[in-house]
Amino acid sequence: MDFHKRIKVLRESFAAQRVDAVLITNLKNIFYLSNFDGSTAAILLTEDRNLFLTDFRYYGKFETQVSDGYELVPFYNESLGKKIGDLARANGIKRLGFESENLTHAQATELEDKAGVELVPTTGLVEKQRLIKSAEEVEAIKRAVALKESAFSEVCKQIKEGVTEAELAAEFEYRIRKKGAQRASFSPIVAFGPNSAMPHAGFTNQQLIPGMPLTFDLGVELDGYCSDMTRTIFFGGVSPGWERIYNIVREAKAAAAESARPGMKCAEVDKIARSIVEGEGYGKYKAEDGTERDYFGHGLGHGVGLEVHEAPRLNAVSKDVLKPGMVVTIEPGIYLPGQGGIRIEDLYLVGKERLNNLNSVTSSLQVIP
Amino acid sequence: MDFHKRIKVLRESFAAQRVDAVLITNLKNIFYLSNFDGSTAAILLTEDRNLFLTDFRYYGKFETQVSDGYELVPFYNESLGKKIGDLARANGIKRLGFESENLTHAQATELEDKAGVELVPTTGLVEKQRLIKSAEEVEAIKRAVALKESAFSEVCKQIKEGVTEAELAAEFEYRIRKKGAQRASFSPIVAFGPNSAMPHAGFTNQQLIPGMPLTFDLGVELDGYCSDMTRTIFFGGVSPGWERIYNIVREAKAAAAESARPGMKCAEVDKIARSIVEGEGYGKYKAEDGTERDYFGHGLGHGVGLEVHEAPRLNAVSKDVLKPGMVVTIEPGIYLPGQGGIRIEDLYLVGKERLNNLNSVTSSLQVIP
Repeated sequence: MDFHKRIKVLRESFAAQRVDAVLITNLKNIFYLSNFDGSTAAILLTEDRNLFLTDFRYYGKFETQVSDGYELVPFYNESLGKKIGDLARANGIKRLGFESENLTHAQATELEDKAGVELVPTTGLVEKQRLIKSAEEVEAIKRAVALKESAFSEVCKQIKEGVTEAELAAEFEYRIRKKGAQRASFSPIVAFGPNSAMPHAGFTNQQLIPGMPLTFDLGVELDGYCSDMTRTIFFGGVSPGWERIYNIVREAKAAAAESARPGMKCAEVDKIARSIVEGEGYGKYKAEDGTERDYFGHGLGHGVGLEVHEAPRLNAVSKDVLKPGMVVTIEPGIYLPGQGGIRIEDLYLVGKERLNNLNSVTSSLQVIP
Repeated sequence: MDFHKRIKVLRESFAAQRVDAVLITNLKNIFYLSNFDGSTAAILLTEDRNLFLTDFRYYGKFETQVSDGYELVPFYNESLGKKIGDLARANGIKRLGFESENLTHAQATELEDKAGVELVPTTGLVEKQRLIKSAEEVEAIKRAVALKESAFSEVCKQIKEGVTEAELAAEFEYRIRKKGAQRASFSPIVAFGPNSAMPHAGFTNQQLIPGMPLTFDLGVELDGYCSDMTRTIFFGGVSPGWERIYNIVREAKAAAAESARPGMKCAEVDKIARSIVEGEGYGKYKAEDGTERDYFGHGLGHGVGLEVHEAPRLNAVSKDVLKPGMVVTIEPGIYLPGQGGIRIEDLYLVGKERLNNLNSVTSSLQVIP
């Protein structure tokens, strides 16, 4: 990855922000700028220096992992405000940008009190770069996709009566690790029957019995980059009712993916899928407590990269616009409380003309006998 | 767990904070107060209402998981500031406490701009309760310890020439899942030879060869509660030099654990272990880049509970004091850059008189032939 270019682009934003340095504390942004994947660090980028603050536990990683051009600044058991104040004075920093969406209110207040520089809250300085994936990043995501698919196909072979959600989740995580993934990109969702009506179900000790929908929402993190996919499959037959719902969801996903174009508003893509779901009668219903709820109550999708959920957002209130190089999910769903749910999710690269599906697992209805 | 009591204690803190409501956004604190283990929620606790804000994905969890006494407030695609403003007006809230160490600067600013109430930053309101574990919480931690030890003993049987760090990490995670853990309490550290010189090494595809130290730093999360343990063992013999270092670390850990008492400052416990390590010649050394570094450069330990790293902190600058009901690690280490490191970590319950080791795996030098 071209860390020098990323740092250069970040530094070029100083003028517009009217700052002479920025403090980067978001760990994903730190990885993006330096290749460091530890849990504690900060980058202070001045007009001519790349300072890397970390503690003893990570000196080894600093030496072996962090891209060249950074200077190590040991930082441990100290006040961040005081440390940044010392560095600001030594480097003539007057106006310091910080990541307003990462630093906590308490940290920002401490910085304000002790650093003795003018603080400038910034948002999305690094995320703006991360939004558009380079060819090298797309390749990394494709590797994360391939690894996930290979593990998923092995897990599918373990589906049998009596197996639990937790067991299949464990099988998935074991296999991705053996295949070299650092970790799952989020805690696996394996949800049988009524549990699949909860979009973020996790997994339980529920055993599989015939006739149930099974929702798998799975992803891996490989070399820092994430994959994400959802499939709902059936075990021991599928009722005509579920088959109809499945096909509505599948059609909604396909229509959104096929209509989406660079330049289109993400809210519009959401609307394409949602109109189909609603048009088939799965708009709103009255819940037991009397409130009105949606059968498809979550957004259509989200960006994927170093984080499994990142910009852009594909939902009704999003202001984002699709651009070539974005990688996004499209994942409509219909959920019948207490009964079950169907969600189908694929991962797409926004190309110059259209969206390209990075997943290759079929989204046709699969019934395991 | 007694959620009603926890809520009551939190509400009793309103007077001292001079607030008439608090907004809880830290997910571990939300779990502590409600049993909710999803990824998106907030609790607004007024003088007489327990409002639970979450989105569509978690309505099912709200119904099945959240303790009674909470009212569901659907919250999705909205501004937090505006939503809290509406709820504040409806409930006559004038001064609202928020978690300054959890809300980001951007979120706090938005709340400030839009909620139309006086905001009061608070720190540790819920964490203060979490510091002292109830008997029920200690039992939960003990179950997380037992599960981790059972998986660790199985993983030890897989140690053989040629196995990789990543494979042993995968074996550990697979086994804990099969045994019912939700997840590892942190990404497993399995570090062979020179990698063990990095306290937070993670795992790589390094293969095991005889004569190497192997550091395992492992924990599980079970029903929300964490365990944590480190063992360094040897494969294919141990040199007299490593044996000496091992015994220094072991003695440092034992001395700290045996001397520690309720009422003692955590910084003092750190000093007991550190004096032994330094007294044996493992104080400071000059690194290749000319800077002075410590052989034992990290703190002695930390609290463990819903988080694997939480208060109190056992290090040189800590202001914390040991109290009965705290659960803390003691984990000294000596690291020789480029060669390897030794760390031994146990988990202790602070009793009325002394510390009780919750781990049962031996800390005597283990050499696998």
